[in-house]
Amino acid sequence: MPQANEYFPTVKKIEYEGPDSDNPLAFTHYDESRTVAGKTMKEHFRFAVAYWHSFCNENSDPFGAGTRSFPWVKSSDPMANATYRLEAAFEFFTKLGVPYYCFHDRDLAPEGQTTGESEKNLVELVELAKKYQNETGVNLLWGTANLFTHPRYMNGAATNPDFNVVCHAAAQVKAALDATVELGGENYVFWGGREGYMTLLNTDMKRELDHLGAFLRSARDYGRSIGFKGNFLIEPKPMEPTKHQYDFDAATVIGFLREQDLLDDFKLNIEANHATLAKHTFAHDVMLAAQYGLLGSIDANRGDNQNGWDTDYFPTNLYDAVHVMMILLEHGGIAPGGLNFDAKIRRNSTDPEDLFYAHIGGMDTFARALLIADDILQNSEYKSLRNGRYRSFDSGEGKEFASGNLSLEELRALAIENGEPEMISGKQEYLENLVNRYI
Amino acid sequence: MPQANEYFPTVKKIEYEGPDSDNPLAFTHYDESRTVAGKTMKEHFRFAVAYWHSFCNENSDPFGAGTRSFPWVKSSDPMANATYRLEAAFEFFTKLGVPYYCFHDRDLAPEGQTTGESEKNLVELVELAKKYQNETGVNLLWGTANLFTHPRYMNGAATNPDFNVVCHAAAQVKAALDATVELGGENYVFWGGREGYMTLLNTDMKRELDHLGAFLRSARDYGRSIGFKGNFLIEPKPMEPTKHQYDFDAATVIGFLREQDLLDDFKLNIEANHATLAKHTFAHDVMLAAQYGLLGSIDANRGDNQNGWDTDYFPTNLYDAVHVMMILLEHGGIAPGGLNFDAKIRRNSTDPEDLFYAHIGGMDTFARALLIADDILQNSEYKSLRNGRYRSFDSGEGKEFASGNLSLEELRALAIENGEPEMISGKQEYLENLVNRYI
Amino acid sequence: MPQANEYFPTVKKIEYEGPDSDNPLAFTHYDESRTVAGKTMKEHFRFAVAYWHSFCNENSDPFGAGTRSFPWVKSSDPMANATYRLEAAFEFFTKLGVPYYCFHDRDLAPEGQTTGESEKNLVELVELAKKYQNETGVNLLWGTANLFTHPRYMNGAATNPDFNVVCHAAAQVKAALDATVELGGENYVFWGGREGYMTLLNTDMKRELDHLGAFLRSARDYGRSIGFKGNFLIEPKPMEPTKHQYDFDAATVIGFLREQDLLDDFKLNIEANHATLAKHTFAHDVMLAAQYGLLGSIDANRGDNQNGWDTDYFPTNLYDAVHVMMILLEHGGIAPGGLNFDAKIRRNSTDPEDLFYAHIGGMDTFARALLIADDILQNSEYKSLRNGRYRSFDSGEGKEFASGNLSLEELRALAIENGEPEMISGKQEYLENLVNRYI
Amino acid sequence: MPQANEYFPTVKKIEYEGPDSDNPLAFTHYDESRTVAGKTMKEHFRFAVAYWHSFCNENSDPFGAGTRSFPWVKSSDPMANATYRLEAAFEFFTKLGVPYYCFHDRDLAPEGQTTGESEKNLVELVELAKKYQNETGVNLLWGTANLFTHPRYMNGAATNPDFNVVCHAAAQVKAALDATVELGGENYVFWGGREGYMTLLNTDMKRELDHLGAFLRSARDYGRSIGFKGNFLIEPKPMEPTKHQYDFDAATVIGFLREQDLLDDFKLNIEANHATLAKHTFAHDVMLAAQYGLLGSIDANRGDNQNGWDTDYFPTNLYDAVHVMMILLEHGGIAPGGLNFDAKIRRNSTDPEDLFYAHIGGMDTFARALLIADDILQNSEYKSLRNGRYRSFDSGEGKEFASGNLSLEELRALAIENGEPEMISGKQEYLENLVNRYI
Ligand SMILES: [Co+2]
Ligand SMILES: [Co+2]
Ligand SMILES: [Co+2]
Ligand SMILES: [Co+2]
Ligand SMILES: [Co+2]
Ligand SMILES: [Co+2]
Ligand SMILES: [Co+2]
Ligand SMILES: [Co+2]
Repeated sequence: MPQANEYFPTVKKIEYEGPDSDNPLAFTHYDESRTVAGKTMKEHFRFAVAYWHSFCNENSDPFGAGTRSFPWVKSSDPMANATYRLEAAFEFFTKLGVPYYCFHDRDLAPEGQTTGESEKNLVELVELAKKYQNETGVNLLWGTANLFTHPRYMNGAATNPDFNVVCHAAAQVKAALDATVELGGENYVFWGGREGYMTLLNTDMKRELDHLGAFLRSARDYGRSIGFKGNFLIEPKPMEPTKHQYDFDAATVIGFLREQDLLDDFKLNIEANHATLAKHTFAHDVMLAAQYGLLGSIDANRGDNQNGWDTDYFPTNLYDAVHVMMILLEHGGIAPGGLNFDAKIRRNSTDPEDLFYAHIGGMDTFARALLIADDILQNSEYKSLRNGRYRSFDSGEGKEFASGNLSLEELRALAIENGEPEMISGKQEYLENLVNRYI
Repeated sequence: MPQANEYFPTVKKIEYEGPDSDNPLAFTHYDESRTVAGKTMKEHFRFAVAYWHSFCNENSDPFGAGTRSFPWVKSSDPMANATYRLEAAFEFFTKLGVPYYCFHDRDLAPEGQTTGESEKNLVELVELAKKYQNETGVNLLWGTANLFTHPRYMNGAATNPDFNVVCHAAAQVKAALDATVELGGENYVFWGGREGYMTLLNTDMKRELDHLGAFLRSARDYGRSIGFKGNFLIEPKPMEPTKHQYDFDAATVIGFLREQDLLDDFKLNIEANHATLAKHTFAHDVMLAAQYGLLGSIDANRGDNQNGWDTDYFPTNLYDAVHVMMILLEHGGIAPGGLNFDAKIRRNSTDPEDLFYAHIGGMDTFARALLIADDILQNSEYKSLRNGRYRSFDSGEGKEFASGNLSLEELRALAIENGEPEMISGKQEYLENLVNRYI
Repeated sequence: MPQANEYFPTVKKIEYEGPDSDNPLAFTHYDESRTVAGKTMKEHFRFAVAYWHSFCNENSDPFGAGTRSFPWVKSSDPMANATYRLEAAFEFFTKLGVPYYCFHDRDLAPEGQTTGESEKNLVELVELAKKYQNETGVNLLWGTANLFTHPRYMNGAATNPDFNVVCHAAAQVKAALDATVELGGENYVFWGGREGYMTLLNTDMKRELDHLGAFLRSARDYGRSIGFKGNFLIEPKPMEPTKHQYDFDAATVIGFLREQDLLDDFKLNIEANHATLAKHTFAHDVMLAAQYGLLGSIDANRGDNQNGWDTDYFPTNLYDAVHVMMILLEHGGIAPGGLNFDAKIRRNSTDPEDLFYAHIGGMDTFARALLIADDILQNSEYKSLRNGRYRSFDSGEGKEFASGNLSLEELRALAIENGEPEMISGKQEYLENLVNRYI
Repeated sequence: MPQANEYFPTVKKIEYEGPDSDNPLAFTHYDESRTVAGKTMKEHFRFAVAYWHSFCNENSDPFGAGTRSFPWVKSSDPMANATYRLEAAFEFFTKLGVPYYCFHDRDLAPEGQTTGESEKNLVELVELAKKYQNETGVNLLWGTANLFTHPRYMNGAATNPDFNVVCHAAAQVKAALDATVELGGENYVFWGGREGYMTLLNTDMKRELDHLGAFLRSARDYGRSIGFKGNFLIEPKPMEPTKHQYDFDAATVIGFLREQDLLDDFKLNIEANHATLAKHTFAHDVMLAAQYGLLGSIDANRGDNQNGWDTDYFPTNLYDAVHVMMILLEHGGIAPGGLNFDAKIRRNSTDPEDLFYAHIGGMDTFARALLIADDILQNSEYKSLRNGRYRSFDSGEGKEFASGNLSLEELRALAIENGEPEMISGKQEYLENLVNRYI
């Protein structure tokens, strides 16, 4: 299936040219076959392009119409355009050299007049995607269903007070799971953009949360029944579009999964911008998920520290990337998840090359961050400094305490025996300098 | 034990004078013996004065020295001042007419040179407090240990990387539990102001969280062993003084308690200002705790929507109070917790009467809110509107779904059978008007 | 011109029924002919309906398609729909009983293929609007040009780095000024939603600000040349849709107008939600503008204290409304501006009546606030308390200082002579209770 | 005057060792005599140590007592300790190798029982400081008066409603100006931490602002009368400790200075953390001041993107520093101001070396940023890209418009003549990648 049309004629395959290159359409740090800490860069990151953000999103905003011109929209038939779009996307994936992409059902295939027609549209596009995958070797990191755009979801999807809407959400998830399995998707994501409330005045939170649990169990059972072996992922976000979403942050989602007994099948997809909207750092939510064995995948983007909404910038901040790569290196990596660029070029980035610049910047930032993080972990005193702070719990009474073997009275007796503790510096400035030294 | 000294000579017992009174030192709405929804106002609120905020806090801030003059500080002996302070406090409690107070160990009695001396100081003051309680009928809503002021806690208390500090925290909690039991305290609170991190770079979160669990279990076991029958309470707060505290918000704490298997003994103490710092409304965190049967008590104060720190204003906002009282009325009330005024008069509120105005304002606001909330629940269509939104789950297939009895395929079949859902208004503006109509 | 079609058949003229009415489609407090402080309620508020928000906005959001169904969109011809829309709007204005409305050029009339065609469309609709105005007595509070929706404005309008875009902005403003004058509009508004930057990296702020000044002077000169006698208004907003907008807040805009020598012709249109996005209270920005004689008009809405974007809720908070009405009463009122409901019903408020509930709630809130504010100013000690705080400047040396007649050395001499100042309480809790007593 | 005591015996003079050094007590990038863009690094930065932050601040916080141990506090006599403190400070300045320091009056010398005694204390310490300055060559970047710590300022200093407090503020400013002149201070700073309000309910903003203007004019006149030739600087901050401060941000202060006709003598001291609290980037407020010729000096620190208060971290973020250095390089540098480390080591940074690490980190960060910024400006297409965006205003009709020579009608005619503008990419991702490439 040779490509019939070319959509990015001004851009060739992006190559690694090294840190001294000043070619903006080359990688300066991302060298996919370079081995770091026992794995290639490709294996470390498992980069994915987000189909919606890069090929469907027109860059409208609440105050303005879309600005992007899509050469793949050239027909009056939505299904025809969907096939052009897919063709353009695989051209982009291939030229960029990413091993993965991610999609929402409704981005791949247009909604039909009926559930049946929507399903049929999706099946048709999935077949085409499968051909492109086979041909290019670009695979599906995860699939998901869009349960937030259609007006029917204005009061929620799985948590909608109207059962009929829940059924429609289920129909979409079923079809999206079918599609994900058909395409060999390695994960399946739930982002609950409408699972929350617009006003608490009209809402029974617990009832809605229990419905969400029931819904996720049904989806899990169905997924397993059709042979899906990957992780189900929940992507936390505190708010927007609703006033308050139930999957507020990593800690909230972990608590919910535990309560609903879903921890065997579900992990988390952490998005940087969602973490910061919830008043956490990106690293915090990644760390929390990782330390509890629940880090499923990452939506690699960047928020704006002055703007209180989901800006979805491309990730170019080395500090964030280095910290996250340190966490990944110490916790066994991101697979079977990956780093998905859930990020949008700016509304005024209207040149075709801008989409490439954006992804190249994100990939180079993480590649460089991997090298720095590995260097810090291998060559600096970072790990020994951090771990050494806890040495009083590595043995003796501290260890007994941590194992639950000391009573409050015994602890008090030790306080009296040992007297006033030493003041031990936390060395924050020292550590911040250490990180800067390696950047 | 007649009062030897009078500290608020310009203020008499605050009486209820009704809504038409213009006496600023009278209640216009709080009539403690008035019955609403089957309970007296006194029983509904179980108001408590916070000992630290009202009698120890000098109203310094990070940029200024304290401004309050304390007539009860008149000796060079801290223990003598501690007894005067207590005398003044009970004069205030009695004149205000609150049934409860709350304390930290170090506010009641000064820290000694050694753990033993600190314990002795506390025992001595507890005996005096017990006499005042007996004499006045003012009781202890909850006790707690201050594990954040002393420099030794700069890296945490139960989560300190140095085991010796954990032991000192344990010694304090043991003594504070002893004191609470001795004084008939109905609850015991943990606020983890230093249980978090200053920088994630030097921190092993999971290890610290596990230490926190071990610590709380030791405290629980000890409390039960000395006959404490009340609830242990955790008070969430997202940050301040540390960069990030582990007890971030209600959902985080509930998840932690569940993971650590502490739900049988622990509930939550929700503070309004802490909820808003965590990007929730006060009502949200109260509702979440209440719906999960975990609402233990409330720190009734108010944050500032423009300032990003814990302002601890007195609660005077009717909207917040009405919503919270609606939740309490629908969830069985706050007992054995109460409404504690974890609130500070402003730094420039330097008249002795200001402390009375502040508490009167808070009590009247909640009293009025109770009347309004009861009116809404009894006489408006509020409940039927909210509950009616979920009627499709009260029976039939919706109920089957909620009970976990429908598969994803069955749900999909229903979607196809039922067709496109109706668009059902959430009626937010209608409900907001309804609330305003009852205020 | 009798109304050919009825768009809100379930709603009759909204009448004042008094505070005891439980008719949600009646006013409980807004009684337009009631006189308060020497003016009728109608004269106090000069309420306006925002044409875009109520008749054009489909309630889409960044994550979802529009949910509203517009009975006035019934043709494939945009111009025909524009006339139906106008007919529906005047039905609404009349049934609601507001004296004013406000519009953007592109809301009234669709953009054409060329500037000329757009101008022609607008002229045509303006003629129709004029007929409706004459027939109904509903007048135009202000007009404005939409310089943010069209893709051409993605890099700014008057501050666009491309001069050709500035010309197009000028063409639109010229036509909108023509329309405003033709319709007897009492003010003309500039909201600079794209006048700012997406990234400071590519921006010359000062150059852009100087262009903005030049643009506004051209508009002012043209407006005056065609007989416009009203105020030009700038509406501050700190951000959104851009990362940073130049008209950040009231203080910034006042400073800009002063620098650009525009204070004789320009005043401010203060929007509540924009003030809170800039970390001010609504009252703060209204007060600042009022005290400098620059309060032109008000966009009466409400933000969300947890959400960092422009939620544009309808204004139902009595505290905000009371404070603002106190300011208006003390500063001579809002005329020739008014209170414009720059507010959106929620995405899930899909019943036709919801638009009425929303406006009724806003109008009743302000009506009640006016009564409360007048009561506070007339009957409480509020004014004397506040003004009394400054009495040391009313005469003597304090007055000399304020007049600029005391040197630093003379002030120092007075400090030494007078000794340590008294500590004077700010009475914040007292004042907050006072306000609550009048609500 | 040989140093009698050594306070940092474990630390020797900090030397430049280059980027490969792993000595945490050496500079890796700050090489004071290295020339970049025509000036030495020492001349570029004019680094200053903040006397309060490093030698007076005990690292208490609102929830905890101070943690630092001060070897220079060894007497029961505050004046004696003040001399030890100064000795320690100059040891630190010298070992660190900074050319400047900054002080508040009350940090240098303790407040006395009377104004006269306070003045005498200050004079005495100033004489000692002068000796140390002469001996070490470390000079005074700026002086200031602390008008916020003493309880008398709880309602404001220059804006206090009590004239007597204004007089005390004046007495302090007079003495601080005397001290600054005596020590050859190059600037004089006003930070108005109490110039604002706790509640707008009790406040007459305009009256207070006019008092502030009168106060500043008196101070300016006095300063000039005693021979002060430097800049007066106002340091904006939006809030904290008050709810709202009048010097909210750079734009607000510029507007105020213009209104009060103070622009000839006053410039701005921009603090990074204050800018971010006001919802601006550090670079934004620096750029605004610089482009209007009003950048006086910089308080180089760093806020926390999750915490809503003034964290005053040391500045270690390369992105912020690079952007600011680009602005300084393009606008003629910071002299006669400097980069003052208005920054605090963390509460748990209790080792004596931590104070050195913190400053070294800040200095190296800016040194590296200078090299990067110069490289970008000299060697990249950055400047041509940015300036090229405005080329349509460099000549022809665009230039005429910018000069105020085109009417709205003429602009409209050009719009029609030129037709629809081209869509021109803002190149944000390209520019962000460019910056990363040079870091
Ligand atoms: Co995402
Ligand atoms: Co996002
Ligand atoms: Co509390
Ligand atoms: Co608090
Ligand atoms: Co507006
Ligand atoms: Co708005
Ligand atoms: Co500063
Ligand atoms: Co600061």
